[in-house]
Amino acid sequence: MRYDFGSDNTAGMAPAALRGLVEANEGFARAYGADDVTAKAADQIRRRLDADAEIRFLFSGTAANAIALSMLAWPHEAVLAHHAAHVCTDETGAPGFFGQGVGLIGLPGFSGKIDHRALTAALEESEVGHRQPPAALSLTQSTEYGTVYTAEELRHLIEPAKTKGCGVHLDGARLANAAAAGFDLTQIARLGVDVLVFGGAKAGGLCTEAIVMFDRSLARRIDNRLKQAGQQASKARYLAAPFLGMLETNAWEDGAAHANLMARRLAEGIVTRSPYVLAHPVEANAVFLRMPAKAHQALNAAGWACYRFDDGSVRFVCSWATTQEAVDEIIETIAILN
Amino acid sequence: MRYDFGSDNTAGMAPAALRGLVEANEGFARAYGADDVTAKAADQIRRRLDADAEIRFLFSGTAANAIALSMLAWPHEAVLAHHAAHVCTDETGAPGFFGQGVGLIGLPGFSGKIDHRALTAALEESEVGHRQPPAALSLTQSTEYGTVYTAEELRHLIEPAKTKGCGVHLDGARLANAAAAGFDLTQIARLGVDVLVFGGAKAGGLCTEAIVMFDRSLARRIDNRLKQAGQQASKARYLAAPFLGMLETNAWEDGAAHANLMARRLAEGIVTRSPYVLAHPVEANAVFLRMPAKAHQALNAAGWACYRFDDGSVRFVCSWATTQEAVDEIIETIAILN
Amino acid sequence: MRYDFGSDNTAGMAPAALRGLVEANEGFARAYGADDVTAKAADQIRRRLDADAEIRFLFSGTAANAIALSMLAWPHEAVLAHHAAHVCTDETGAPGFFGQGVGLIGLPGFSGKIDHRALTAALEESEVGHRQPPAALSLTQSTEYGTVYTAEELRHLIEPAKTKGCGVHLDGARLANAAAAGFDLTQIARLGVDVLVFGGAKAGGLCTEAIVMFDRSLARRIDNRLKQAGQQASKARYLAAPFLGMLETNAWEDGAAHANLMARRLAEGIVTRSPYVLAHPVEANAVFLRMPAKAHQALNAAGWACYRFDDGSVRFVCSWATTQEAVDEIIETIAILN
Amino acid sequence: MRYDFGSDNTAGMAPAALRGLVEANEGFARAYGADDVTAKAADQIRRRLDADAEIRFLFSGTAANAIALSMLAWPHEAVLAHHAAHVCTDETGAPGFFGQGVGLIGLPGFSGKIDHRALTAALEESEVGHRQPPAALSLTQSTEYGTVYTAEELRHLIEPAKTKGCGVHLDGARLANAAAAGFDLTQIARLGVDVLVFGGAKAGGLCTEAIVMFDRSLARRIDNRLKQAGQQASKARYLAAPFLGMLETNAWEDGAAHANLMARRLAEGIVTRSPYVLAHPVEANAVFLRMPAKAHQALNAAGWACYRFDDGSVRFVCSWATTQEAVDEIIETIAILN
Repeated sequence: MRYDFGSDNTAGMAPAALRGLVEANEGFARAYGADDVTAKAADQIRRRLDADAEIRFLFSGTAANAIALSMLAWPHEAVLAHHAAHVCTDETGAPGFFGQGVGLIGLPGFSGKIDHRALTAALEESEVGHRQPPAALSLTQSTEYGTVYTAEELRHLIEPAKTKGCGVHLDGARLANAAAAGFDLTQIARLGVDVLVFGGAKAGGLCTEAIVMFDRSLARRIDNRLKQAGQQASKARYLAAPFLGMLETNAWEDGAAHANLMARRLAEGIVTRSPYVLAHPVEANAVFLRMPAKAHQALNAAGWACYRFDDGSVRFVCSWATTQEAVDEIIETIAILN
Repeated sequence: MRYDFGSDNTAGMAPAALRGLVEANEGFARAYGADDVTAKAADQIRRRLDADAEIRFLFSGTAANAIALSMLAWPHEAVLAHHAAHVCTDETGAPGFFGQGVGLIGLPGFSGKIDHRALTAALEESEVGHRQPPAALSLTQSTEYGTVYTAEELRHLIEPAKTKGCGVHLDGARLANAAAAGFDLTQIARLGVDVLVFGGAKAGGLCTEAIVMFDRSLARRIDNRLKQAGQQASKARYLAAPFLGMLETNAWEDGAAHANLMARRLAEGIVTRSPYVLAHPVEANAVFLRMPAKAHQALNAAGWACYRFDDGSVRFVCSWATTQEAVDEIIETIAILN
Repeated sequence: MRYDFGSDNTAGMAPAALRGLVEANEGFARAYGADDVTAKAADQIRRRLDADAEIRFLFSGTAANAIALSMLAWPHEAVLAHHAAHVCTDETGAPGFFGQGVGLIGLPGFSGKIDHRALTAALEESEVGHRQPPAALSLTQSTEYGTVYTAEELRHLIEPAKTKGCGVHLDGARLANAAAAGFDLTQIARLGVDVLVFGGAKAGGLCTEAIVMFDRSLARRIDNRLKQAGQQASKARYLAAPFLGMLETNAWEDGAAHANLMARRLAEGIVTRSPYVLAHPVEANAVFLRMPAKAHQALNAAGWACYRFDDGSVRFVCSWATTQEAVDEIIETIAILN
Repeated sequence: MRYDFGSDNTAGMAPAALRGLVEANEGFARAYGADDVTAKAADQIRRRLDADAEIRFLFSGTAANAIALSMLAWPHEAVLAHHAAHVCTDETGAPGFFGQGVGLIGLPGFSGKIDHRALTAALEESEVGHRQPPAALSLTQSTEYGTVYTAEELRHLIEPAKTKGCGVHLDGARLANAAAAGFDLTQIARLGVDVLVFGGAKAGGLCTEAIVMFDRSLARRIDNRLKQAGQQASKARYLAAPFLGMLETNAWEDGAAHANLMARRLAEGIVTRSPYVLAHPVEANAVFLRMPAKAHQALNAAGWACYRFDDGSVRFVCSWATTQEAVDEIIETIAILN
C-alpha cells in the first residue's frame, strides 16, 4: 500500500527537522524545557507571528487543542467549532476528556469554514441553565477541507465571538500550508486569537506541536498544567529541535509551499484527465474528490491509501515529501479507473 | 552548569536510539501505530519479558503511569504506592487528572521499597463509604531511591494485593537499570503485574515509554483511550524507533549496565574521599548522599546540578552517557568541598 | 404566572409523599442509607420490577443518569441516545462531566423514540481510533415527547445493542406515566436493562430518584461512588421516605394515571376547540402542540407558562396535581387565543 | 443501637425546618430556584452574614465543598486544608472528582485548627512544575475536632494565603455551632472568605447546604455549573424551605446553642464521673474522649453508636435533638464501663 496521499502525517521528518533533532542530541541539557533549543525555537515562532506570547512544545496536536480549549471554557460551558473540525470529529472526544465534559457545538459552513450567520445565531441564543453556553470559538487554518480563511473572514467570525466574551482558539495543524497560500501569520495575534496551536507534525516535524498563548494570563502555571496532562517532556529539547531545524531554514514554509503546489497539480491533473469533480476549492495541500464508492475501492485496490470523509468526498493530501512522480502516477491511475 | 548527574533525562539519545530514529525516517508509513517499526519494537519487548502482552508507545512516562492506573482503579477508589514514588511526588497529580480524582495512598518503607506490613495493614483496613478503598498497587523498579526489589520481595507485596482484588502496576522508568542489576525481566508477568511501563527515556531513548498490558482485557479500545488522552502519535514510528534501535542492539541493557557501574564508582569514590555517607544502598544508577545544605550549595556553586529529595538527601544520577572523567571530576570536587 | 402545565416538576409533593417524609422524621436514624425507611422503599421498587437489584436513592435525576452512564461507558467510548433525550439536551453535559468526556451520539426517531435502523447503523459503523465507539444505549420511558415504547419496541432496540456488547440504561424519570399507560414494569429487567433510573420527582416526590442496578457487578463500591459524586445523603431516609409514602399507597401509580388522564383531556379539548394540531401522540402526561410563535406568546401573556421544544412544538405537562379546572381553563384560553 | 451521639446527622429535621418544608409544599412553583422560598432563604443568610453574596442551595455538603474548591483551584493546583478536615478524610476524594484531580495538601495543627507556621511554610515553598502548588485555603468552622477559631485566628491564616493569591473556602457544615459559641458571622466576608458553605443538615435541616459566593465573579454561570454537577433541583424550593423555616424562627441558632450546651454537660459529666480525659477542648457540639478500645467496644455493646477518629479518640456529637436524659444516660453508662 502506498501512503503518499493518505495523509500529511504519513511522510517522515523533513531533512531540516531531522538535522535539527540530531544536532540537539549533543551533550547534556536541562530537562523540562529550560534548554537553549527550546528557547530558540520559541523565538523563531514569535518572530513569525510578530507577537509576544508564551510558547510550549507538546507531543500531540490532539492534546494541544484540548488543553487550549480547557483554558478557555469551563466544563459547564461549550466550544463553538465547525462540525467537521478535527476537535469535533477526529480526536476521540479529547476536549471533553481534558475539559471534564466541556461541550462542543458543531456549526455548519461550506468547505470547512464556519458560516457567519450560524455563528452569530449560536452566540445570540439565550442562555439557560440546562445547556452549555458557548465560551470559546475554535477555528482551523487551513481548514479540514483544505480551504484557507482570509484575515477578513476570520475577523467576521472572531469579532462577534469576542463581543460575547468568548475566547478564541486557532488550530494551526496546517498553518504552514495556510501561510504558503498567502495567509499573513502576523494577523493572528491582531485578530484576537488567544491560543494558537502552531503545527509541526504535518509540516515535516516530529509529532510535536507548539501551543502559543498570546493571552499570557492563560499561561499561568502552564508547566504544572502540561506536566499533569502528560504533555511535558523531560527531554524537552527533542520536541523543539525539529521545529528549530525547520524554522531556521524556512523548511517549514518551503515544505508547505511544495505541498500546496503538488495539491494544485494533483487537482488539475484529475480534473483534466478523469470524470471526478472537486468537492472543495484546493487552496492548501488537500484535494477532495466526489468519487463513487466503486472508484474509491478500485483506487485502494490499485495500492493507493485514501479515505472517505463525512461529506462523502475522498481526500488526497500532499506534504513536503510528495513527489511529482507520485502525483503523475496517481493521476494516471485515477484517469483509467473505470 | 553541568547536568551530568542532575538526572538521567539530561543526557541525549544513545547512538543506537538515534540511529533507530534516523532509519525509521525513510519513506511513507501508515500513521497511528500500524507501521512495521512499531510492530518490531513491541516484539523486542515481549521477547525480553517472555510474555504475551498488548503494547503501545506513549510520549510520556507520567501519562503512561496515570493511564495505567486509570485502568486499574475507578475515581472512587485509590492506588497504594510508596509515598516517595514518582506517581505520588513528581507527576503533578497526573493520576488524579487522568483518573478523575482517583486517590493515592502513600505507604512507608526504607529506601523507596514499600514496607510489607504497611501494605497489608492498608489492605486490611475495613472499607467505609467516605474513603477511597485501595483497588491497585503501584510499584517502581528500580525504586525512586535507587534500590532494586528482588523478585521475592515483589512477590510478598503483589500476593496480598492480588488476594484483595487489587490490580498491579509497575513503573519501570528505570527498568533497564534494575535488569542490569540482575532483576529477571521474565518474572514480571509471572509475578502477576497487570500493566508495566517499560522505560525508554531514561535508558537513552527519546521521551517515550511503552505501556505493556499483560492483562489484555485492559487493552480493550486502547487506541481510542490513548488518542483521547493525547498519547497517540500520528507519526507513531518515531516513538517506537528509538526503542527498536536500542533493543535490537542491546544498547538498552548495556547503557544501563554502564550507568549502574558509574553510580557504584561514584559512590565508592565519595565514600572513600569525602565525609558524606550514603543515604540508600546503591543498587542501580543513583547515589543519594547525606550532605549538609552548605555543602550542597557549594557543589551547585561549583557548577554541578544536583537536587535535594524529600528524605533530605542529595541525589546524583548516572546514565548511559556518564563518563568516567565526569565521575572522577565530581568526586574530586566533593572531596575538597569544605 | 401559572406553572400548572410548565412542567411536572412545578407541582409540590403529593400528599402521600409528604406524609412519608413527615413520618420518617421521628427520632434518630443511622446515616448514609443504613436505615429502615431506605430498606423498605427499595423493597417496594424491587417488588414492582419483580427483580432482584441493588438500589440507591439519589438527589438528582441528572446525576442519576450521568452516574448510570459512567458505569456503562469509559471516557473514550460513547452512549447512543435519542437526540432529544434529556441526557442529550437538558442536563448541561452532565454525562461528560461525570463520565470524564464520555461521548453522546444522538439518534433520530419519531416522537422521541429511537429509530431502529438508525440504531443498527450506528452499531455497525466500523470502529476507528479517533472516534468514540458506542458502549451503551440510553433509553427513555416515557419519552421526552410523551410517547410510550411497547416492550416489543424496546426489545428491538435493546437486542442489537446487547449483541454488540453495549450496556443499557433506562431513564425512567416518567416511568410512572409509562406504567399508568400500560407499560409492564416487570419487563424492564427481562428486556436486559442494566441500570434503571426510577423516577420520583415528577411522580410527586421530593427531588429524588432511585438508581436500580440489575447488573449487581455495576454496584461494586456504589456507596463510595455516590459519596464522591455528591449523591449520598447523610440523612438518607429523607430521600427514600417520599418514595416509600407513594409506593406503599400506590400514589406513585395513581398520580401518574391522573396526570395521563388530564393530558388526554387537555389534548382532546385543544384539538376540538382550537386550530392547533398535536405534534406527537399523547400517550403519557404531555401534550405537544404545533403553535405559531404569536399564539405561544399570547398564551404566555395570558399567564400560562409553557415552553417551546427543539422540534418547534409547545409542550404542556400534567402531573398528579393538575386539576380538571385548570385543564378547562387553559383550553378555554387557547380556544380564544386569536 | 442508639444513634443519639453517633453524629449530628442522625437526628431528624428540627420542627421549624419540617414546618418550612410543609409550608413550601403548597401549589405550583417555578422550578430550578426561581421561586419565592429560595429567594427568601437566601435573604435570611445574607442578613446573618451582613454581606452581599450569590447564594444557591445544594443537596450535599460534600458536593458543595468540592464545587467551591473547583472554583478556586485548577486541576494542576492544590488546596491547603487541615489534614483532618472533612474534605481530606471524609468525602471519598470528592474534591479530586469535581476538580479533575485537584490536589489536597494536609496541614497539621492541634485540635483541627491549622497551624499558622505550617501554613506559611507551605505557602512559601518554591514552586516546581512537577508538584501542584497551592491555589486555595480551605478552613472549617467549627472544626472537625469540635473547636472554634476566633476571628483573629482566622485572620492569621487567611491573610498570608490571600497575599500569595490563594482563594479561601470555609466549610461551615457546623457554622451554626460556631455562631452559638460566639463566633461573629459578619466577620466571614470581612476576613476575605471567597466561598462559604453554610450548613443546614447538621443544624436540623434536610440534607441541604447553601453555597455562598462573596466573590460574585465565582458565581458566573453557576446554574449551569450546578446543573451539570447534579446539584440543581428541579423542585428547588424543597432545598431552601427547611433553611427558611429555621432561619425565620432562629431555630438554626437555637438548636446549635442547645447542641453546644448538651456537649458541655456531656463533657463535664464524663470528666467528673469517669477516668476518660478529653482529647480536645469542647467549644462546640462535639466531645472527643481518650478511651481504650475495650471501653469503646463496651460502650458500643451497651447500645450506643460512637466512632473512633484518626487521632485515636472517640467522638460524641450532640444536636438540636439531643435530650438531657440521653446525656445523663450515656454518662451513667460510661461511668460504670469497667
